[in-house]
Amino acid sequence: MTIHEIADWLGGEVIGKNIDDAPDIVRVAKIEEADSGSLTFLANPKYEKHLGTTRATAVLVSRKTDLKKNIDRSSLIFICVDDPYAAFLHVLKRLTPAIEVFSDGIHPASVISPNAVMGKNISVGPHAVIGEHAAIGDNTKIGAGCIIGNYAQIGSECILYPNAVVYHQCKIANRVIIHSGAVIGSDGFGFAPKPDGTYEKIPQLGIVVIDDDVEIGANTTIDRATMGDTHIHRGVKIDNLVQIAHNVVVGEHTVIASQAGISGSTKIGKYCMLAGQVGIAGHIEIADHTIIMAQSGIHRNIEEQGKSYFGYPADEARKAQRVYAAMKMLPDMVREVTALKKKIEEIDKGFTKK
Amino acid sequence: MTIHEIADWLGGEVIGKNIDDAPDIVRVAKIEEADSGSLTFLANPKYEKHLGTTRATAVLVSRKTDLKKNIDRSSLIFICVDDPYAAFLHVLKRLTPAIEVFSDGIHPASVISPNAVMGKNISVGPHAVIGEHAAIGDNTKIGAGCIIGNYAQIGSECILYPNAVVYHQCKIANRVIIHSGAVIGSDGFGFAPKPDGTYEKIPQLGIVVIDDDVEIGANTTIDRATMGDTHIHRGVKIDNLVQIAHNVVVGEHTVIASQAGISGSTKIGKYCMLAGQVGIAGHIEIADHTIIMAQSGIHRNIEEQGKSYFGYPADEARKAQRVYAAMKMLPDMVREVTALKKKIEEIDKGFTKK
Amino acid sequence: MTIHEIADWLGGEVIGKNIDDAPDIVRVAKIEEADSGSLTFLANPKYEKHLGTTRATAVLVSRKTDLKKNIDRSSLIFICVDDPYAAFLHVLKRLTPAIEVFSDGIHPASVISPNAVMGKNISVGPHAVIGEHAAIGDNTKIGAGCIIGNYAQIGSECILYPNAVVYHQCKIANRVIIHSGAVIGSDGFGFAPKPDGTYEKIPQLGIVVIDDDVEIGANTTIDRATMGDTHIHRGVKIDNLVQIAHNVVVGEHTVIASQAGISGSTKIGKYCMLAGQVGIAGHIEIADHTIIMAQSGIHRNIEEQGKSYFGYPADEARKAQRVYAAMKMLPDMVREVTALKKKIEEIDKGFTKK
Repeated sequence: MTIHEIADWLGGEVIGKNIDDAPDIVRVAKIEEADSGSLTFLANPKYEKHLGTTRATAVLVSRKTDLKKNIDRSSLIFICVDDPYAAFLHVLKRLTPAIEVFSDGIHPASVISPNAVMGKNISVGPHAVIGEHAAIGDNTKIGAGCIIGNYAQIGSECILYPNAVVYHQCKIANRVIIHSGAVIGSDGFGFAPKPDGTYEKIPQLGIVVIDDDVEIGANTTIDRATMGDTHIHRGVKIDNLVQIAHNVVVGEHTVIASQAGISGSTKIGKYCMLAGQVGIAGHIEIADHTIIMAQSGIHRNIEEQGKSYFGYPADEARKAQRVYAAMKMLPDMVREVTALKKKIEEIDKGFTKK
Repeated sequence: MTIHEIADWLGGEVIGKNIDDAPDIVRVAKIEEADSGSLTFLANPKYEKHLGTTRATAVLVSRKTDLKKNIDRSSLIFICVDDPYAAFLHVLKRLTPAIEVFSDGIHPASVISPNAVMGKNISVGPHAVIGEHAAIGDNTKIGAGCIIGNYAQIGSECILYPNAVVYHQCKIANRVIIHSGAVIGSDGFGFAPKPDGTYEKIPQLGIVVIDDDVEIGANTTIDRATMGDTHIHRGVKIDNLVQIAHNVVVGEHTVIASQAGISGSTKIGKYCMLAGQVGIAGHIEIADHTIIMAQSGIHRNIEEQGKSYFGYPADEARKAQRVYAAMKMLPDMVREVTALKKKIEEIDKGFTKK
Repeated sequence: MTIHEIADWLGGEVIGKNIDDAPDIVRVAKIEEADSGSLTFLANPKYEKHLGTTRATAVLVSRKTDLKKNIDRSSLIFICVDDPYAAFLHVLKRLTPAIEVFSDGIHPASVISPNAVMGKNISVGPHAVIGEHAAIGDNTKIGAGCIIGNYAQIGSECILYPNAVVYHQCKIANRVIIHSGAVIGSDGFGFAPKPDGTYEKIPQLGIVVIDDDVEIGANTTIDRATMGDTHIHRGVKIDNLVQIAHNVVVGEHTVIASQAGISGSTKIGKYCMLAGQVGIAGHIEIADHTIIMAQSGIHRNIEEQGKSYFGYPADEARKAQRVYAAMKMLPDMVREVTALKKKIEEIDKGFTKK
């Protein structure tokens, strides 16, 4: 596509010299990796330094960007749009040749129970297993080696990548994406201690319910409830290697980054953000719109909405940041307090003597 | 079942009004989710507040519970037992219709080596693989897509959920439960540094030994020993996404929560509790009955039994909690010390002047 | 092998009594587990205490070890070599009977796309899948249940253990080892927030590139790039349950221990060491030869090479260790500052009074 074609398609404004001589845009690339024929974008001011050196043919920038200092680079062309990153994604999708990831239809090397209820236009990869009385909705793709347990239900237009596992009876709604190695519905970690210090397994008889438009990362584990259900509400996005324990509830449109863990029976609100490696204790509630920063440990209820938390154990982010900043002064303070103590003793001695 | 039938079956005492008019118990539920026809339980005093509002038909309570303040709710019936939670589990199992999770017999789409030694009444799911010279005990269930390596041994009455992997030569005893995606016997992370800064792989020639009655969570990894064995003693319960490195020993009846990690050659005692996301350094020993709180980092031996630890780096819990409480005062203390310093200078000046 | 045969083979010197009467060496073992007929080694002085009690027949020691204090044990024989651990590994390999982990050739229960490009002497286990237009190099072993996506490329002499997954288009070079359950090429965790607080999936159109001689642990996840590639350079060793996010670059010969996580677009230098459960923020750069200690959280660039880091949030290790040491004095300091304050008030009162 030419620069003008792209700008027209995006509704953007072109700024630059020799636009008609510029090469066609044949690919998109990050600003530091772009070369001639590439379109790139500038959304984060942190990357502005690359404007002086990028070898891209054109850069998508915000209409609000001050181009004066960069406009003298005769070879660089700007396309000004409202949201450069969104515009970039549109071009990315348009220029990337789509490849088929899933094959059409039911592979003969899969095993589908005769009493499974199968919708239309389903893809089932080789060595996938659909259990007894399971149900799969229209247009859903079940990757190679996926195992769908007995009585499990999966809605329409879902994508399960290879080797994902859904245990018996779990219910997955529509347009859910589950990445490879994710395990949905394994037993909750529940054991009743016996007087002799050993444990008796508590039967885990509930299920996992996953609502529409959820995405679940690779090797993430979501345990079935002891009874009732572990419930992931619609629009939730979960990264890789996340642990969701039994009877947890995750509210709508919450995002959970990699290696975070949520202990049993905890309720996470809507529109929350849990960063990487966060740990959350069991049997607590986290209010809507809460942000929890990386590696933080939350051990009690968060009742007020829309606050950020940080630290181990976590506190409100502003408080915690003051504490962690003060921590760095600690060795100096120890020295100072010792010095003050000595000084006071001297003063006191002198004072008393008198 | 009627209230009386349940109470008789459990050996409990019924307290309440209009017991004969109460609906039959057809399900069990958590106290806040129970409705008419539900039996619930009260074990944790924290949930006592729900007694005033629960819509359950009956509640299992301890014989020691003081019912006076709740007895006026005409519609609520109490069944008093020694252990309400244990009683609840009995009713839960009895009322929950059991579904078949594993199919009977050897599925024709599995691959079993002709020289594998197979016990009686084994279930092998579709696409499972039993390697050369492997041995599987009576009544064991091997889920779909499980891979049992060459020379591996699995005892009787074990359950391996779909897509679990047991590497070659590993030995698993009886009544062991392994959840989906768990990997038993992968190579220990051992590399000898070479003078040029690169690494040479140290062959990992040992095995993993898992004793009776162990449960292993989904996507947990237990590495084989460099030589000898990584040993999980009987009754140990391991949650999801836990890492057990090469040559680790975990003592009897220890429980390890999700995302904890134990580094190479470390010995964990018996009856310990490791909470979620705990990290334990390599080549150390942890005494029996030790409790390690969530996200703590343990980097040296724990020699005294029965203590709790907390923090990063961890210290004895009581000490650590005092430290973390004091941390919150740190910004105030910095200000205070600065003020004291100024005050002392003033005093000192005045004092000296005189 | 006799003691003399081993010493000759290793080029070592034998010291001890009655060497000709010693039993043949038939196995190797750790110093505390060795018995008669065992060869062990002493590399770490920490284990020297075992020299007095080991039941090993012979011990590999460094030529630099001072044997005087141990030489009086008439039954213990020393073989002095330059590098006792390396020598031990040689003997270990020689004495351990090799077992076949992978079967020869293409198993008939695998599914290989007719247009896949297959090298010579490849092993493909039962229920493995090789996708459309995928390419596999000579002598590579693909374990049972592995799924190789469409257009994926795997080089020569690689080993993929059972149930590993390589997504479409990813490129893996030569002599790469991938353990069971590892997922290479799952979607990066990228979602564009919409004005209503919900998210739109950003298509993840890049790939993962893994260079020669990399090892990847069990259940580790490496996400494909949004565009371009997530790149693991040659010689990198990655342990179990590690998360590598989209567009991350890991430099040559860096080692990453279990449960560490690296967020999106971060660049890790060469020859770095990341210990267990380390977390690294996104969009930052870590200099070559950096060491990051266990559970540390890194949230900004590390520009100077060869330093160690520790803490949450991390600081240079020496500084951080001073801070964490001072932390333990914190409760005492709070008391002390309160006492000082009181004392000063008294002095001040007395002083003012006068």
